[in-house]
Amino acid sequence: MANSSALPLVELAEQFAKLPGIGMKTAQRLSFFVMNMTDAEAKEFADAIIKAHSTVHCCAVCQNLTDREICPICDDLSRDRSLICVVESPKDVTAFERTNEYKGMYHVLHGLISPIDNITPDKLKIKELLSRISDGTVKEVIMATNPTVEGEATAMYISKLLKPLGVKVTRLAFGLPVGAILEYADEVTLFKALENRNEM
Amino acid sequence: MANSSALPLVELAEQFAKLPGIGMKTAQRLSFFVMNMTDAEAKEFADAIIKAHSTVHCCAVCQNLTDREICPICDDLSRDRSLICVVESPKDVTAFERTNEYKGMYHVLHGLISPIDNITPDKLKIKELLSRISDGTVKEVIMATNPTVEGEATAMYISKLLKPLGVKVTRLAFGLPVGAILEYADEVTLFKALENRNEM
Repeated sequence: MANSSALPLVELAEQFAKLPGIGMKTAQRLSFFVMNMTDAEAKEFADAIIKAHSTVHCCAVCQNLTDREICPICDDLSRDRSLICVVESPKDVTAFERTNEYKGMYHVLHGLISPIDNITPDKLKIKELLSRISDGTVKEVIMATNPTVEGEATAMYISKLLKPLGVKVTRLAFGLPVGAILEYADEVTLFKALENRNEM
Repeated sequence: MANSSALPLVELAEQFAKLPGIGMKTAQRLSFFVMNMTDAEAKEFADAIIKAHSTVHCCAVCQNLTDREICPICDDLSRDRSLICVVESPKDVTAFERTNEYKGMYHVLHGLISPIDNITPDKLKIKELLSRISDGTVKEVIMATNPTVEGEATAMYISKLLKPLGVKVTRLAFGLPVGAILEYADEVTLFKALENRNEM
């Protein structure tokens, strides 16, 4: 309970506690912090949630989250359109962009194949990836899913679909520690993993 | 940056990063979590912030946060009105209520005297405390501020104001926390535990 004396405070703490990695005690601390904000600050916070949620959607090309029709990366004519880096989630795009070394395109799957969680290939943005390959611009697809069971399975599955289309399919090098989460990898490790990618 | 492709997402992450104990990477993770909420869930979250912020204020009696005129604790006729426990913040009220042992009233100061941070006594709810003493109902005031420099100074300051009013002023006992390991206790705590030893 945030505070037995104020139901709206308890309700706010319960909202914070729904967020990943935030327990009831931290949630309570956060809601007390919100109470000490000015009216304008609290409104700005609430508006940011609504605005992000209502204006951000998938890019029509790469499926990354964006507030435009086509995201700035897909819209950037200086980037190498012959190369697509396939990732699980938008967080991974951010991680690769932080390396400042990768100048190709991306494709965000929005998940990994996981039959146990009822995530079948048709629930991922795989057909959108295949349609991007069809016009012959793309020469290489880098499978950059996490080095976990689901990540490997998804990479294998997509690789088998892509190879008949005559496109080179590569996999991130195992410079990454197996079992690690891509989003937390440091820039150098991530760059090495990109540089040493192998053909699948 | 939350994601270079979507400004509203970056803005939401910046809002989360303002919260205590939340860095930019966690803020980014939280904003991606919000993106995966349903519209209704996101609205509920934003509304909880606005509602808590707009409806919760200080109780007219004890200054604890509440959404009513008088908080449920002050409104509870079964509680002992001759006893007031003076605390720094609403969080401390919650902590005492969790013990399920204290049945007196509270008074929330909303801060501690700290000249270095420009927090002078007039910025705390001290005059509200003094006015509660005037009608003679209160027999004892427990100073339950933290055992820090500011907490001690505030307890001393208020105690000097209260004593001439003929009210008994007490301070929380210092000693070893239950379950503590003696060898790791700091010197001051150990000295206090020795000094305040009780007959068995």
